[in-house]
Amino acid sequence: MIAMMRRTFLALSLLGLLAVPVLAQTDPLPSWNEGASKTAILDFVKRTTSEGPDFVPVDERIATFDNDGTLWSEQPMYFQVMFALDRVKELAKANPALAQTEPYKTVLSDDKAALAALGEKGLLQILGISSTGMTVEDFRGIVLQWVKTARHPRFDRPYTDLVFQPMLELLSFLRANGYKTFIVSGGGVEFMRPWAETSYGIPPQQIVGSSGKTEFQLDGDKPFIRKLPEIEFVDDGPGKPVGINRFIGRRPVFAAGNSDGDLQMLQWTTLNTGPRLGLIVHHTDGAREWAYDRHSPIGKLDKALDEAPKRGWLVVDMKNDWKVIYPFQK
Amino acid sequence: MIAMMRRTFLALSLLGLLAVPVLAQTDPLPSWNEGASKTAILDFVKRTTSEGPDFVPVDERIATFDNDGTLWSEQPMYFQVMFALDRVKELAKANPALAQTEPYKTVLSDDKAALAALGEKGLLQILGISSTGMTVEDFRGIVLQWVKTARHPRFDRPYTDLVFQPMLELLSFLRANGYKTFIVSGGGVEFMRPWAETSYGIPPQQIVGSSGKTEFQLDGDKPFIRKLPEIEFVDDGPGKPVGINRFIGRRPVFAAGNSDGDLQMLQWTTLNTGPRLGLIVHHTDGAREWAYDRHSPIGKLDKALDEAPKRGWLVVDMKNDWKVIYPFQK
Repeated sequence: MIAMMRRTFLALSLLGLLAVPVLAQTDPLPSWNEGASKTAILDFVKRTTSEGPDFVPVDERIATFDNDGTLWSEQPMYFQVMFALDRVKELAKANPALAQTEPYKTVLSDDKAALAALGEKGLLQILGISSTGMTVEDFRGIVLQWVKTARHPRFDRPYTDLVFQPMLELLSFLRANGYKTFIVSGGGVEFMRPWAETSYGIPPQQIVGSSGKTEFQLDGDKPFIRKLPEIEFVDDGPGKPVGINRFIGRRPVFAAGNSDGDLQMLQWTTLNTGPRLGLIVHHTDGAREWAYDRHSPIGKLDKALDEAPKRGWLVVDMKNDWKVIYPFQK
Repeated sequence: MIAMMRRTFLALSLLGLLAVPVLAQTDPLPSWNEGASKTAILDFVKRTTSEGPDFVPVDERIATFDNDGTLWSEQPMYFQVMFALDRVKELAKANPALAQTEPYKTVLSDDKAALAALGEKGLLQILGISSTGMTVEDFRGIVLQWVKTARHPRFDRPYTDLVFQPMLELLSFLRANGYKTFIVSGGGVEFMRPWAETSYGIPPQQIVGSSGKTEFQLDGDKPFIRKLPEIEFVDDGPGKPVGINRFIGRRPVFAAGNSDGDLQMLQWTTLNTGPRLGLIVHHTDGAREWAYDRHSPIGKLDKALDEAPKRGWLVVDMKNDWKVIYPFQK
């Protein structure tokens, strides 16, 4: 029903029947405080969708969003890592030998510093074992079950409650103005797809992410896609523009990120002719969310923060620009 | 303008404002002769978009189409091979040493039997050299120039004139009924994207194809995506369901192909619960197009033809089912 309403709204917007009265009557970004960030976003969307030198045809209105730290929180650790750790613990119950092997030993020790030090390689091993030899459909079921039952340690709520209300409004606002919204995340595509449509209104075909190899199998009259324990593509850093080119095939007009892993996506999007907006979510709110940037092992924001003024990227100050952080605080 | 009209039509259809009167007044498939094939298509679309047990929600209306031999012709050789051969000839002018090395020697000899025998490996080598060290943007320009200037040897027309009028109508009909149309082709994604939006109304992000590796480069303030001479993904045979899962993330409800390279896509689409339609374009018209199936080196249709009756796939008889083949014959 919501999807139908959204589609109807979009259809009417495209026809130019709704755009003016709706925008005049209601604030499309109610969770954004008045200020330079909100003004810059409203102005950009107005310029790119109205007649004039900055007009962008609907087909070219591509907006890409990082996920971890940009659309939802990523502390104390990427939520997909929390998922994988939960998986490993479950697998170890069935297979105690795992508990003696690294990196699973570290996982099961619950030593947070050691866990943080496992790095990408350890994480990939953990992610690997949590999906080896399984069909995509089975993995989807496991992810959905986890989304339903797991609780974030600080907020004691489902992880999907920790999406950013202001960013949900931004996604809707862009879509209502003919933009296609994509996720371009270092996270696993098969991990995001099961819940992203419900949480963000972004369908599976608009999610670009890291992936493992898969293979097709026909078992009698039943076909499967099986996940293999081999990395296929890491959609992070310079991998993001590569992923955008491969999956979308068009340079975005708008891109949002929050860490150095988004640097090249921001460059690829904004270092182009025509109107472009690069946006960085700066985690400045230790009270309501977390405060971190240059020295954080998770979501390190250093080079991109230095480059922002030079490139004209909009640095959103979470503490001052956002009225609320999460939907449950509305 | 056409794109705007198409969009408006789709928007109105989604709102339910146009669907009934338009379908009642005009034939959505005028280039299809009356008969079992046309009836099966009309019936399938009606059942999946009307209230009832076979209704499919709009978000799940995914239709995938092979390209070569399904949406346009593929004789005397895949058109991308014709492109690559033209490229090699041009490159050899600038670099005569190429003429002494296989497989380029064979290309330049114009020996059609030897060319056909090069196989996939030779083709990939040729495709490789025709794009090595080039940016995606440069390659796009070369493809568009070729589309504009090259002529098909039999029809003396641009290759893009040899798209199938009945399939264009089918694409539009599906889209008018809320289906998202995707290309899922063994051809190169970077080869198809430059012209597919104009020819088929299919945007770059809805094209799945074979691809080479690419890398991101920042040259001062100018970012590039560079094509590397290394295969990344072959979207053919069992690669098609893998590509569908990776790029679309949802099983199609409708799939169309014409060769054994589409067998697994047809299986993946139709061996599922709920209403599904698998369609095979059978090249039976030697006079207006070409007649070939089981023994053709290009577009071999053998196993999928055997499997069609068992699976309930619709085998379209080009000669008898299609009133015209190409748009210029209308």
